[in-house]
Amino acid sequence: MKDSPIGIFDSGVGGLTVVAEVIKKLPFEDIIYFGDVARTPYGSKSRETVTRFSKEITRFLIGQGVKLIIVACNTASSVALDVLKKEFDLPIIGVIRAGTLAALQATENNKVGVIGTSATIASGSYVNDLKSLAPHIVVISQACPLFVPLVEEGWTNHRVTTLVAKEYLSPLKDNGVDALILGCTHYPFLKPVIAETMGKGVRLIDSAIEVAGMTKEILKEKGLLCEENKDTARKFYLSDTSTNFIELGERLLGEKMRVITRVDVSEYA
Amino acid sequence: MKDSPIGIFDSGVGGLTVVAEVIKKLPFEDIIYFGDVARTPYGSKSRETVTRFSKEITRFLIGQGVKLIIVACNTASSVALDVLKKEFDLPIIGVIRAGTLAALQATENNKVGVIGTSATIASGSYVNDLKSLAPHIVVISQACPLFVPLVEEGWTNHRVTTLVAKEYLSPLKDNGVDALILGCTHYPFLKPVIAETMGKGVRLIDSAIEVAGMTKEILKEKGLLCEENKDTARKFYLSDTSTNFIELGERLLGEKMRVITRVDVSEYA
Repeated sequence: MKDSPIGIFDSGVGGLTVVAEVIKKLPFEDIIYFGDVARTPYGSKSRETVTRFSKEITRFLIGQGVKLIIVACNTASSVALDVLKKEFDLPIIGVIRAGTLAALQATENNKVGVIGTSATIASGSYVNDLKSLAPHIVVISQACPLFVPLVEEGWTNHRVTTLVAKEYLSPLKDNGVDALILGCTHYPFLKPVIAETMGKGVRLIDSAIEVAGMTKEILKEKGLLCEENKDTARKFYLSDTSTNFIELGERLLGEKMRVITRVDVSEYA
Repeated sequence: MKDSPIGIFDSGVGGLTVVAEVIKKLPFEDIIYFGDVARTPYGSKSRETVTRFSKEITRFLIGQGVKLIIVACNTASSVALDVLKKEFDLPIIGVIRAGTLAALQATENNKVGVIGTSATIASGSYVNDLKSLAPHIVVISQACPLFVPLVEEGWTNHRVTTLVAKEYLSPLKDNGVDALILGCTHYPFLKPVIAETMGKGVRLIDSAIEVAGMTKEILKEKGLLCEENKDTARKFYLSDTSTNFIELGERLLGEKMRVITRVDVSEYA
């Protein structure tokens, strides 16, 4: 069971930023990644559709013998996590809680900002989670739908991105938040622009780093942590293997994906 | 058969701009629209996946008794049209050919520009089709991946969009094209910005208008045109009915979608 892999899934390749952080923090764990690129993005889809897709993927990962699942997708974490936890009998961790816990630790003035895709922000999941843990916290949230396409275009250091960031982030800045949750797997690539726009004294919370830390704690607690220095197996399953996704994915992961398999999880409905 | 509806499909709600033009040009035709919003966008997906999805939808539309199918999606027109035409026995029209014919009529200096999503441009379909019809034509094409998210954000008249348009369109302008194919269903919403960036003397080719005209000709030629002034039935099928899509769709269509049904076409695999 200790030797079983960690399952990580996302609506696309964005979750590979989570894989990169898990590799850093948990270097001896085997990893099975599933990216639902054939049906990406989840952000604009309905709660039922996202929940159905998430269940299919969870069944697939359990079939691969994983010991724990990280839902790297903010949308799936927002809308499907509770259902998954109820229905399946293994630890399942979402990016939302990891981000909110870190933000609550970081803030000193109790004003927290949250940015994400339209769906993540509209779902209110970060706000609800923050408020449930700390009712006195003031939360200002802002959808930034152009950030993902800007990262995918490679314009992480471009005057257009600076202009877009100014437009999106000014309400957060004006309200004086001192901790800002980057509620989308692509946003860490915009850290320099976001940091410059927000100014000094604002802590940026990277959910990928936080969820990796949380995973380590939970594995340790359950006696499932693999600390043995051994060769690790990392397998990447995608629902579509077009070269676009592989190129973008490897940029996000920061290394080559050696074993990529195409799989249609709609069979797991 | 004359009374049968026209089937129109797209990867999402973008194809509703085609529906709007078909309604203008063919006011007495019944229409069945299918938007694959649960699996949108097609632009970044592989040829096999897009072909598989397109076949499923075509089978669904044929099951609804359509007399002709318009593939309103540029990606599906690029990669799947030939397969569909071979496999199914009814007239199937794509947006590509409609756009290229109009561009060839419009150009005087034989320099044609094409803009579209990364997938449409990478497929080379517009270039290949233009060259097959008129080998002497010079074609300059440019992917504009940020245009769709900018339209969906509603920033059709925004300084960011002007800046993005300048960046994307300068190679086309510098090369002196005098006709520019808007190779994506969302782009007509950016006509004012694109026209201003390109300057006077450049004809913008709107594929939605062209494909509607082409459909009228083909129906007439085959004796299938419905000219009787009667009540028309328009049905909209979507693979996901989240309010986002309906709101955006009605903006693109320019009117209410009265009958919306959710359908899962993966049963038609």
